[in-house]
Amino acid sequence: MSEWILGIDLGGTNIVAGCVRRDGHALHGFHSEPTRPEEGPDAVVDRIVSLGRQAMAETRAADPAAEILGVGIGAPGPLDRARGVVLLTPNLGWVDMPLRARVGEPLGLDAALDNDANCAVLGEWWRGAAQGTRHAIGVTLGTGVGGGIIIDGRLYHGASDVAGEVGHITIDANGRRCACGNDGCLEAYVSGPAIARRAVEALNAGAESSLSAIEPAAITAQSVYQAAAGGDTLARDVVRDTARYLGAGVANLVNIFNPEVVVVCGGVTLAGDGLFGPLRHEVARRAFKPAVSACRIVPGELVHTAGVFGAARAFMEQRGLTDA
Amino acid sequence: MSEWILGIDLGGTNIVAGCVRRDGHALHGFHSEPTRPEEGPDAVVDRIVSLGRQAMAETRAADPAAEILGVGIGAPGPLDRARGVVLLTPNLGWVDMPLRARVGEPLGLDAALDNDANCAVLGEWWRGAAQGTRHAIGVTLGTGVGGGIIIDGRLYHGASDVAGEVGHITIDANGRRCACGNDGCLEAYVSGPAIARRAVEALNAGAESSLSAIEPAAITAQSVYQAAAGGDTLARDVVRDTARYLGAGVANLVNIFNPEVVVVCGGVTLAGDGLFGPLRHEVARRAFKPAVSACRIVPGELVHTAGVFGAARAFMEQRGLTDA
Repeated sequence: MSEWILGIDLGGTNIVAGCVRRDGHALHGFHSEPTRPEEGPDAVVDRIVSLGRQAMAETRAADPAAEILGVGIGAPGPLDRARGVVLLTPNLGWVDMPLRARVGEPLGLDAALDNDANCAVLGEWWRGAAQGTRHAIGVTLGTGVGGGIIIDGRLYHGASDVAGEVGHITIDANGRRCACGNDGCLEAYVSGPAIARRAVEALNAGAESSLSAIEPAAITAQSVYQAAAGGDTLARDVVRDTARYLGAGVANLVNIFNPEVVVVCGGVTLAGDGLFGPLRHEVARRAFKPAVSACRIVPGELVHTAGVFGAARAFMEQRGLTDA
Repeated sequence: MSEWILGIDLGGTNIVAGCVRRDGHALHGFHSEPTRPEEGPDAVVDRIVSLGRQAMAETRAADPAAEILGVGIGAPGPLDRARGVVLLTPNLGWVDMPLRARVGEPLGLDAALDNDANCAVLGEWWRGAAQGTRHAIGVTLGTGVGGGIIIDGRLYHGASDVAGEVGHITIDANGRRCACGNDGCLEAYVSGPAIARRAVEALNAGAESSLSAIEPAAITAQSVYQAAAGGDTLARDVVRDTARYLGAGVANLVNIFNPEVVVVCGGVTLAGDGLFGPLRHEVARRAFKPAVSACRIVPGELVHTAGVFGAARAFMEQRGLTDA
């Protein structure tokens, strides 16, 4: 008999699923589908369940002795782990969605729910860039900016399951307005849309760039990274500024947590050394030396699978199955 | 037989000592003396040992069955708990001082070392304003700005014992230069000297105030609090701005940790509602609602004794004596 956990990573764009062996050294039935939230919550839940069934079937086909212990679900938004309810997800338009029951019951599996950024970071800790550390912090850069905190090898959730909102740490008390209503949040500078916006602002100010060949509304963080990799000066400046803003936020985390590693996850890792060089420099300049010297700053390694590994591990954590 | 722990709180200005009963409900032999660091480390260590002997003697006189289990020492600066060494304390001018042995050996006691801000926060958690919580954050405002992190009822130290440097979180990436060399640290706005400096700047800009009766160099944070309590407009503005800057820092901590309580310790608590009112308002404005609603923001209660209670508790933590 071998023991497996189904991991589900629910995002605003894609649903990703797969079965992870309890020792973390095998992944079966890994598949992804667009989320299509505009079709409503029932359609999204059906898609999750169908992807889950597929992953379980492929796992049992590959390993007839497979026992599926349960399902871990990583979902966006603040949530209540004890009740298994997603409280609010602007990306999906959900309010008070009892996702744990809605997924666990049709699959016939014990289910556990955790935050998607937490799961991505837990996945990197378990099988990726933060393996072997005790204290690790992860920052997830995408449409939004999230994070996860690993203390003593376990996710830290705080008093009401909303710890790790690193996207909304203030880096400039009088700075840019954030979508959350606050001023100067990290997310207002380094989210994908914020990176694109800074590039468009520089173009509007008259800077020359290969990006001017793209419609301003179509410029994304990815276009900026690609142009920077191609040597475009404006794009390189935007990436370097991104690194500096991110560095202010990461320096805060390094000063507060004194972690062994900070993992930066998301598409931004495509920017490579053009980002990580100035990022490390900025953190070294800003943070407390003994904390800097204790800490590596690295890109995530599990670009597509971190959320699935982490969701499976979150189930194991919540059920006390992590000692094996 | 009753069990006691000697607690020592070593600061740049005063040394405070006392014996704390293991259940935390009694304090004996509580005394304080000026540190006088200019007399050199040997004189300071002698004074610590002498205060410790006095506290132990008074405890044994009051309770002939007293057993002193050990001594906990709260000391400034980054330190190495495993080796019992204070690495660097600018206030005292010490480098690599083996304080644990220098205090424990002459007293004949098992000794443990921890950071002074950590101890103050641990004291507030054990016997003060954060009692009964699982996750608590403390911010200590004084000549510098420090902090401590309690997770699951224990101090969190990080990878190399320097976690909790909340004075050096960036609140304005392009802001005031901090003594640490960084720009825009919380400490550059809300330390005692920073509060006094902002008052002097406002006076120099021509604002009317009762503070203009004081020599600029003699204005302290305390004078500002007193003038504010007396209704002085300039001083009230300085206190309100202090609350806003502090609010940006505390909002970061609330978003990151989702704690049950943030305790603000130090002389600043004298500013009362003039500070805590706008502080709570700023945090509510800046931080994530579910995290704000889970969190009280309160002044410390153990104005003089937090460090001694916390140093004793830190010894208990390090020796596994906290379950009793």
